[in-house]
Amino acid sequence: MSGQPKIRYGMAGGGEGAFIGAVHRMAAALDGEFALVCGAFSSDAERNRRSAEALGLDPARAYATLDALLAAEGAVPEDQRMEALAIVTPNHLHAPMAIAALDAGFHVMSEKPMALNLAEARAIAEAVARSGKLYGLAFTYSGYPLIEEARVRVARGDFGAIRLVQVEYSQGWLSEPIDREGNKQAEWRTDPARAGLGGCLGDIGTHAFQLAEHVSGLKVEQLSADLTAHVPGRRLDDDVAALLRFEGGARGVLKASQVAAGDENGLRLRIHGEKGGLDWSQMEPNTLTLRWLDRPAEIVRAGGPGLDASTMGRLRVPAGHPEGYIEAFANLYRSFGRALHADAASSPPPGAADWFPGVHDGLRTMAFVEAMIENSAGEAKWTSLAESPGRGG
Amino acid sequence: MSGQPKIRYGMAGGGEGAFIGAVHRMAAALDGEFALVCGAFSSDAERNRRSAEALGLDPARAYATLDALLAAEGAVPEDQRMEALAIVTPNHLHAPMAIAALDAGFHVMSEKPMALNLAEARAIAEAVARSGKLYGLAFTYSGYPLIEEARVRVARGDFGAIRLVQVEYSQGWLSEPIDREGNKQAEWRTDPARAGLGGCLGDIGTHAFQLAEHVSGLKVEQLSADLTAHVPGRRLDDDVAALLRFEGGARGVLKASQVAAGDENGLRLRIHGEKGGLDWSQMEPNTLTLRWLDRPAEIVRAGGPGLDASTMGRLRVPAGHPEGYIEAFANLYRSFGRALHADAASSPPPGAADWFPGVHDGLRTMAFVEAMIENSAGEAKWTSLAESPGRGG
Amino acid sequence: MSGQPKIRYGMAGGGEGAFIGAVHRMAAALDGEFALVCGAFSSDAERNRRSAEALGLDPARAYATLDALLAAEGAVPEDQRMEALAIVTPNHLHAPMAIAALDAGFHVMSEKPMALNLAEARAIAEAVARSGKLYGLAFTYSGYPLIEEARVRVARGDFGAIRLVQVEYSQGWLSEPIDREGNKQAEWRTDPARAGLGGCLGDIGTHAFQLAEHVSGLKVEQLSADLTAHVPGRRLDDDVAALLRFEGGARGVLKASQVAAGDENGLRLRIHGEKGGLDWSQMEPNTLTLRWLDRPAEIVRAGGPGLDASTMGRLRVPAGHPEGYIEAFANLYRSFGRALHADAASSPPPGAADWFPGVHDGLRTMAFVEAMIENSAGEAKWTSLAESPGRGG
Amino acid sequence: MSGQPKIRYGMAGGGEGAFIGAVHRMAAALDGEFALVCGAFSSDAERNRRSAEALGLDPARAYATLDALLAAEGAVPEDQRMEALAIVTPNHLHAPMAIAALDAGFHVMSEKPMALNLAEARAIAEAVARSGKLYGLAFTYSGYPLIEEARVRVARGDFGAIRLVQVEYSQGWLSEPIDREGNKQAEWRTDPARAGLGGCLGDIGTHAFQLAEHVSGLKVEQLSADLTAHVPGRRLDDDVAALLRFEGGARGVLKASQVAAGDENGLRLRIHGEKGGLDWSQMEPNTLTLRWLDRPAEIVRAGGPGLDASTMGRLRVPAGHPEGYIEAFANLYRSFGRALHADAASSPPPGAADWFPGVHDGLRTMAFVEAMIENSAGEAKWTSLAESPGRGG
Repeated sequence: MSGQPKIRYGMAGGGEGAFIGAVHRMAAALDGEFALVCGAFSSDAERNRRSAEALGLDPARAYATLDALLAAEGAVPEDQRMEALAIVTPNHLHAPMAIAALDAGFHVMSEKPMALNLAEARAIAEAVARSGKLYGLAFTYSGYPLIEEARVRVARGDFGAIRLVQVEYSQGWLSEPIDREGNKQAEWRTDPARAGLGGCLGDIGTHAFQLAEHVSGLKVEQLSADLTAHVPGRRLDDDVAALLRFEGGARGVLKASQVAAGDENGLRLRIHGEKGGLDWSQMEPNTLTLRWLDRPAEIVRAGGPGLDASTMGRLRVPAGHPEGYIEAFANLYRSFGRALHADAASSPPPGAADWFPGVHDGLRTMAFVEAMIENSAGEAKWTSLAESPGRGG
Repeated sequence: MSGQPKIRYGMAGGGEGAFIGAVHRMAAALDGEFALVCGAFSSDAERNRRSAEALGLDPARAYATLDALLAAEGAVPEDQRMEALAIVTPNHLHAPMAIAALDAGFHVMSEKPMALNLAEARAIAEAVARSGKLYGLAFTYSGYPLIEEARVRVARGDFGAIRLVQVEYSQGWLSEPIDREGNKQAEWRTDPARAGLGGCLGDIGTHAFQLAEHVSGLKVEQLSADLTAHVPGRRLDDDVAALLRFEGGARGVLKASQVAAGDENGLRLRIHGEKGGLDWSQMEPNTLTLRWLDRPAEIVRAGGPGLDASTMGRLRVPAGHPEGYIEAFANLYRSFGRALHADAASSPPPGAADWFPGVHDGLRTMAFVEAMIENSAGEAKWTSLAESPGRGG
Repeated sequence: MSGQPKIRYGMAGGGEGAFIGAVHRMAAALDGEFALVCGAFSSDAERNRRSAEALGLDPARAYATLDALLAAEGAVPEDQRMEALAIVTPNHLHAPMAIAALDAGFHVMSEKPMALNLAEARAIAEAVARSGKLYGLAFTYSGYPLIEEARVRVARGDFGAIRLVQVEYSQGWLSEPIDREGNKQAEWRTDPARAGLGGCLGDIGTHAFQLAEHVSGLKVEQLSADLTAHVPGRRLDDDVAALLRFEGGARGVLKASQVAAGDENGLRLRIHGEKGGLDWSQMEPNTLTLRWLDRPAEIVRAGGPGLDASTMGRLRVPAGHPEGYIEAFANLYRSFGRALHADAASSPPPGAADWFPGVHDGLRTMAFVEAMIENSAGEAKWTSLAESPGRGG
Repeated sequence: MSGQPKIRYGMAGGGEGAFIGAVHRMAAALDGEFALVCGAFSSDAERNRRSAEALGLDPARAYATLDALLAAEGAVPEDQRMEALAIVTPNHLHAPMAIAALDAGFHVMSEKPMALNLAEARAIAEAVARSGKLYGLAFTYSGYPLIEEARVRVARGDFGAIRLVQVEYSQGWLSEPIDREGNKQAEWRTDPARAGLGGCLGDIGTHAFQLAEHVSGLKVEQLSADLTAHVPGRRLDDDVAALLRFEGGARGVLKASQVAAGDENGLRLRIHGEKGGLDWSQMEPNTLTLRWLDRPAEIVRAGGPGLDASTMGRLRVPAGHPEGYIEAFANLYRSFGRALHADAASSPPPGAADWFPGVHDGLRTMAFVEAMIENSAGEAKWTSLAESPGRGG
């Protein structure tokens, strides 16, 4: 209930049978602040048409290509024209599409990873800078209310100086060679041409890394990695582990796997400081456990007592009414929409009420991917992460 | 992505500051299958106007009263006219509004409890029958995917004949006399004129009862109850317990409280049969635990292996991406919408793909409320539940 | 490491193949403060002999009957004579054996329930009074350290006045008619002549009741019960439910079942007061969860920060090293032993460092059993519990 | 109830105020199969005397030194002579004491780590070989029944070929510089002269490593480590992380910390193979979770259905009656005692009914400690583990 007119957005990718496009649409719809007006849903013309029909769109605004979309929408009267583009394609299209949309004057909300590699990511960052348009990146998990609470607690020093950061992301769905058995989701994710340099690393390792840096407020300076493809014939890693050294002396471990057979979507973050620590698991996202040296552990609950105002602003229903993945995703859209209404030039920094992940997170994660691959392939114990623009970039 | 035009709905109640109205709007919005077109959001004219504005509605369709709304919408061209009314007011308005809307030719989705008492509920049932319109009742918790899985498992005999049904709903938010300290939600819920015969009983005891009968597939035949108002001066019960006897010999316990200080929204259902049992908790709704006499317990997970097709149809994202309360609510709206598109005359029975709670559940729960109050006030050990229409009513 | 000589004890029952006798022996052995010196382990002479041999006892002190044991031990030199008798037989022998042993000048540690009925229990109480000997009753679960913490928290008013007491004890092992298929444990427990008035009621309902009164510090004044035998042909109840009314206005629910198929030993106690509540489950006994109206829930842990000294005195290893059922049992023996060394005339009251359950708990639980049976069989809504001696009796 | 005479054992260390000595005594006492007959409990004569008195020992068998004990006990009549020595001193005494005791003809049960370094450990191994006496090492966690179940499940191929091994051991008790503030336990554990090469590494990293190899049945071939001392002034590591490469291609992560503020004793092991995985946590040791690619996860419970006979043989009470740390420890003593009664020359191999950890585990863990330190101090990415004797050594 913002009282603002709905933001008109289009979608690249996300046609029939796709997974993440539908999630973007639900996330955008939840608060009633976005309206889907056009799309280039599929390179298959018939599928594209059917997708638009199913979504109740004007058939004239289902475009065969993104180029066609950008050209045509530019000519639509301003009060009906698309304002922002959601990019939900496989990874190799993220960079060219984002740059084209930004340069055509549209805001962009993109799926992660930002691009195939750091060079592409930097090109997007330049397009953001020259266009003055907003760029959001769907690091969905950082949209959870209790992730904001965790970030606030670390930032305000509840735990003292941070010593340990442990992050893990455990899935099992690629335990078998389903990428060679017709599973579309698996196919492109294990194809270097479409997925990029990393397999599991790019798909979920980046989520783990982004969450660790976002919540700890600390940058990884050095890492030591071991990337493995367990399933015979797989061309990209399906399992990742790394030792991390953060600025200021904190130590970390990052573990991500897509061959942890039987695991679903086990993203867990633990951070310990001098006085206590926090523990959060994505599969039970409405609980944040705080443990202390000198008093009993606390169960901080979404909607319960003791939350920061910034956390409360990311909740929709009272304590005990579970909110989940779609709501976390909707938080990113809501913040993105508010920045857009406010004519912001970029994502507000962490700590701002309506922060959302964007260029900064994209560049850091692509630098992480490249450093991981370099380290794992080499003999050196430690590899430094490439510098990247500061927060708010 | 149904490909159907959006269903146009209006809303009675749910203006600024209300809780459940916003939930209905999110639930209706999530899948993109409903559009809010009008409302009578508040008896306060200014609040009504502001609510409509915040929701982006045509100011002309923010009506001062429900009567005005029904009259005016009846005159709107059919392809723009409201089709269904969501009733999200305090309880005492449920019956008059539902009957008026049905008789004016609109479908109704109502908050629970159905009415102030069984007589009112029967009047609604008659209005449904004579109007031929759909009537949905927001027993939200029965919209959870794993509640459907639980129901299926019982119905197909996985546990053998049912012996035990234990249901509890534990909240603590009324532990203090906030109903006399300005809390609007608490005020009307503890006022017999607006809440009806039961306090905690009507507000959450009905949820517990509905879930127990819905999942077990068994009707309660007799009950023995103890209703208490623990907070001094409170006019309605804030704490409820009952022994239940089900058809066929199963025994049950129902416990509901709003003075379990510190508890959030602890709805839990356990059912045991000859061979094993199930255990589900609303606050972790994506897990259904099955225990067995002869083999290890199983953790059935939303989106995981082993689910019935009917359960899968109520899920939106893959295993490990938590869905919550709003998604459960959206499942009711989606089923309601599908029945509407299908020109169904009433809620399909449990087991149908798109079942949603309606007249049957409303009548049973109102009969339950009356039997509980009668038993608790009297000397008899057991009170029988009034007969009510069968399933599908 | 008490520095005291070991207490010499004998055992009635508990021969080969018995369950609870071995538990008593482990509990008594754990802290090195008891030594088993004699026994009448079985009415089967050969089994009795073999049991003594396996236990490394002098064959001359394996007696054919309890009478023989009492007579012979009375003639043993005082510094080698048995001091206390552990009674671990089926229920019907508890009272005659306890009375005989007490009257012969021996202390008694008995399995629960105290006796077959309240009259027998009162006869034991009289024998205790006239003998001046100690009488302990194995309400094992009240020996858990965090049960003591829970009791302390309630007693010192952390939660304010108590409003709700919920206790449940859920087992599934009698789901099938194993009592007629050769299972010895099941056989006598479902035989009224050996088990007493209650089946499930006496076996585990008494545990639930004792725990509820012990921790809440409140007596049940009235109850309304429903006892059921679900398994065809079973002569005693296998499932119990009751509504409870406590002194001072608190309300309670007690549920115990031995046909909750798949459940193991699910004893759980929840107590809520005006300000918060506690939650403890026997199967994870080292965690006590406290929930509060105005702040996050706390996880109080065995050995962790925040415990009362009385709790700490019941722990043996640091936090995170789980203690279990045998250690809880050993706490009863240790307290019993300390009272014995201190020449105490009876169990110290709750709150004393070395409290152990005894006559008071036995009389209350037998009164409970009789009231439950009377209520369940009759038409009256409420039955009052018989008066019984106060604490410390 | 073995029917065997009790094994007479002595103790080196473990006087007043010590922690682990008391645990050994409880573990040895639990099943009634060991009797403590002598000790050299403390180098402080008065403390030594008091300890013996408190334990009810003959004052003449409280010796001032281990040498005095070995000499004197050798002269005691054989049927009263000590048979085995429990060594529960700080680490630097483990090797000299074990060698002296073995060479004097006594069996040894030693606390871990085996020794200060691999050279010392090898010297013990030689003493074991030349003496023909038993040598047990208190890797307590491998005594848990469900650890045996986990080992059996992996060994029989339930999960297919193993791909991932994740082990962590998280404590927080050394978060502050209590080693310089009078805490005796902390003092010697952070003193290189008494603790050995590793701090956290030797104290708990070794437990994690032993458990990972024991359950997986796989040897670590290479590791990459990062050892840190977070607390200023601390001379040994208090935090450890490592990437592991196992024989056959499995990958692992090991994390151990004593500065994870607020954590208690968080030892957790996860192993994944091609078809599923297992998950076990020491703080809830009676649950073993199995997750599968193609069916719901299973909760395997101590005492519940589906256990291997080898697991059942390590349990003492029925399902739902929690067993804990002391019982796990007692399993090691029981197996050690059975091997002793059977005149076994060494610990039976894993898979044998009465396996207990010994020389093999000691050598492997000391090789691990040295490799970790070498790798962490150097520039090489990977360090190989030294070869060591095979199982059963």
